[in-house]
Amino acid sequence: MTKTPDSAVRSYIDQHRAAFLDDLASWLRIPSVSADPARSGEVRRSAEWLAEKLRETGFPVAEIWETGSASGDEGRGLPAVFAEWPSGEPDAPTVLVYGHHDVQPAAREDGWATEPFEPVVADGRMYGRGAADDKGQVFFHTLGVRAHLAATGRTAPAVNLKLLIEGEEESGSPHFAALVRRHADRLACDAVIVSDTGMWAEDTPTVCTGMRGLADCQIDLYGPDQDIHSGSFGGAVPNPATEAARLAAALHDADRRVAVPGFYDGVVELTERERELFAELPFDEAEWLRVARSHGTLGEAGHTTLERIWARPTAEVNGIWGGYTGPGGKTIVPSSAHLKLSFRLVAGQEVEKVREAVRDWVAERLPAGIRHEIVFPGATRPCLTPLDHPALRSLVRSMGRAFGQEVRFTREGGSGPAADLQDVLGVPVLFLGISVPSDGWHSVNEKVELDLLLKGVETSAYLWSDLAGSWTPGEDAR
Amino acid sequence: MTKTPDSAVRSYIDQHRAAFLDDLASWLRIPSVSADPARSGEVRRSAEWLAEKLRETGFPVAEIWETGSASGDEGRGLPAVFAEWPSGEPDAPTVLVYGHHDVQPAAREDGWATEPFEPVVADGRMYGRGAADDKGQVFFHTLGVRAHLAATGRTAPAVNLKLLIEGEEESGSPHFAALVRRHADRLACDAVIVSDTGMWAEDTPTVCTGMRGLADCQIDLYGPDQDIHSGSFGGAVPNPATEAARLAAALHDADRRVAVPGFYDGVVELTERERELFAELPFDEAEWLRVARSHGTLGEAGHTTLERIWARPTAEVNGIWGGYTGPGGKTIVPSSAHLKLSFRLVAGQEVEKVREAVRDWVAERLPAGIRHEIVFPGATRPCLTPLDHPALRSLVRSMGRAFGQEVRFTREGGSGPAADLQDVLGVPVLFLGISVPSDGWHSVNEKVELDLLLKGVETSAYLWSDLAGSWTPGEDAR
Ligand SMILES: [Zn+2]
Ligand SMILES: [Zn+2]
Repeated sequence: MTKTPDSAVRSYIDQHRAAFLDDLASWLRIPSVSADPARSGEVRRSAEWLAEKLRETGFPVAEIWETGSASGDEGRGLPAVFAEWPSGEPDAPTVLVYGHHDVQPAAREDGWATEPFEPVVADGRMYGRGAADDKGQVFFHTLGVRAHLAATGRTAPAVNLKLLIEGEEESGSPHFAALVRRHADRLACDAVIVSDTGMWAEDTPTVCTGMRGLADCQIDLYGPDQDIHSGSFGGAVPNPATEAARLAAALHDADRRVAVPGFYDGVVELTERERELFAELPFDEAEWLRVARSHGTLGEAGHTTLERIWARPTAEVNGIWGGYTGPGGKTIVPSSAHLKLSFRLVAGQEVEKVREAVRDWVAERLPAGIRHEIVFPGATRPCLTPLDHPALRSLVRSMGRAFGQEVRFTREGGSGPAADLQDVLGVPVLFLGISVPSDGWHSVNEKVELDLLLKGVETSAYLWSDLAGSWTPGEDAR
Repeated sequence: MTKTPDSAVRSYIDQHRAAFLDDLASWLRIPSVSADPARSGEVRRSAEWLAEKLRETGFPVAEIWETGSASGDEGRGLPAVFAEWPSGEPDAPTVLVYGHHDVQPAAREDGWATEPFEPVVADGRMYGRGAADDKGQVFFHTLGVRAHLAATGRTAPAVNLKLLIEGEEESGSPHFAALVRRHADRLACDAVIVSDTGMWAEDTPTVCTGMRGLADCQIDLYGPDQDIHSGSFGGAVPNPATEAARLAAALHDADRRVAVPGFYDGVVELTERERELFAELPFDEAEWLRVARSHGTLGEAGHTTLERIWARPTAEVNGIWGGYTGPGGKTIVPSSAHLKLSFRLVAGQEVEKVREAVRDWVAERLPAGIRHEIVFPGATRPCLTPLDHPALRSLVRSMGRAFGQEVRFTREGGSGPAADLQDVLGVPVLFLGISVPSDGWHSVNEKVELDLLLKGVETSAYLWSDLAGSWTPGEDAR
């Protein structure tokens, strides 16, 4: 396996660090807030700025990709950026880096200490909206690939490098799956590297090895044709609010395991090694509860908090409503009641099987006189990279060289567009992120730690050589 | 026991029937809609009209009683009418008739075939808002007492007769309990006769022997300090919507009995005789379901529908809400969730004990990390007249003479201001109503059947003599 000389990478980064940070600051000045229709022009400007910067970096292809109506979807989407830099070597692996260039809304009056779209460097940090989520983490790949070339003397990366940087992530990526399907040929690759997550802590570099999937549903229950008087009829006819509550309550057994028959079918259980790795992380439950703004832990018996949020499937009541909800009382049997549920899924669970299990379970539990409808608006599949996957080992090795520390493993409890890439392109998804929990994602005073940002650059610089030298795509599939 | 000669009563009623109906029609023309602030003047005119009519009838005392701010309550109430006609005999029982002179809103465009405040007599019925609920049923007592006097040759009724006709019943009687407490001395009596209910059917005269009580509560559950992300935290922290559902679901066991420990303590169970009497009523469950606008029956195992709505205590979810209830989905663990519950109570249950049982049950069931508040905004006690109560037997006898039929027994599942009279005055409450389910209470084309209305007059005419001759108040308490 070829190693990029670490000192060459580091000295290249040192030389170009100032210009790199200046460039990132310029990008952060573009308020590419995808949720704000008044700023859709800024999202476009951000895409154009990035495409131009990627061309400057050396990518022979850097295009704006339109989303939304062009694809036949409703509404007009916000542009993504696609770039491509072929290796020139016939057997090189192809890697697609995913990130996003849109940002969350931000305004000084929300409580920012500085103007959110006027980046400020102080105390070894760059403050500004998008510094960590996600412009900073997209941008470290630009200096990374240059350092990789400088240190190896190459004129093109050791892997076929592709980037897809979307502009609607903070608005729920409504057109992303369609975009990936439409351009599946050009996005074809052997692995996806997602640079839109974080690591455990400043002093604990980690690699995320999976995200949970998601299937949500709405259940509507109908009883009497209108609200009826609980004095005249209560106690003798079924009450849809009671039945909605009975459904929601029956979701979990006394051990807080999901009680829908078949729900756990196929679940890939944690190995003892994975449980040990989770347990070795310096987890402070009190601090975690503070961040969760919660006042107690509760979940599936036999599992730790980290196992519950990272590796176990769950059922959650996101909303419940029915009957009278105004001031005072109203003695009615309500006409209808409603539930919004979501299920987090882990590797081995199939969305369609979970839906069927839920459908059957609901239908079986309702008494005569309660009509129901159930819809499953969307779903995201889970993704999980085995710990012994060669590309993952390559990533961990590169990160270890950059940080000079053992790299540990985490997972992500949420669900994201990464799964669309996995599913449409049929390749594993790896996560390379250097953000830390204090970075203020979606909050005020968002920042990125400059030394971590440069470790990201360095990881990126080592990764392409390491991957090309240690991985023959297809090997992992055997 | 003295019996009023039935033929004398009947001929008196025949002679005065036309004028009686004319008078009732005049009263129905006054749109005394208590819920409409623009018509508070009409409610007052209705009270004044009734007081004047009661004076004409012979009541030596007929007064307007103000409610609301005069009593120190907030807001300005609508007037009640109080009338009194002493018997003149030292040992005569004292009876208080309760009814109301306000009516539900009504407009031709709601679907009335005629103008709601222009009474029309057709097909043996008088149509108009208030014909049955409640002006017609208040008014039959005026001709009733005159027929009683004419047939017995008395110049004053055989009982000390009092009337309290309130003007806010259709608005929830907000000032009624205070009014009764303020005038408890003048309202002192041995029994209350409520003429604001109905009977089973045209061909099935019945007497209602009890109403259920009511205790309602709101339970607020608080989890995370704000809605939090179900991907990052779901499955590891308590969810107040889940806990609200678990509470609501745990209200009933698999037999749909109320599962709050202690809830049934003291409940006066139905006797075999009472169950037989209920079972003998010509109950058509399909028709009942049609009226209930429901699509199935469901309730406490081991009891019939009539037992469930009339004689069994119940717990009902009137409202439940928490989390996201808008379109689409939102993957959150909600910060709070809320329940509005109400409990129908039967004789033997104490409001304060039920509240305590519910309080304890809620506190015990919630996991650490869920804070809760519980409030009990109001309560109405149940009332029940034993079947062998002498005043009830008197009422049944009088009604039987008027109808020439066996009188059966019903109960009322709802809860009403009658309980305030029972509780404040400490006397039994009896129900004398001649309305039938087709009368259109609170609906369009409200009417009263004229022959039933006159049976009400006749019952009233017999009742005062029968009560005076057969009941020594205090005997029932032995
Ligand atoms: Zn992001
Ligand atoms: Zn009424």
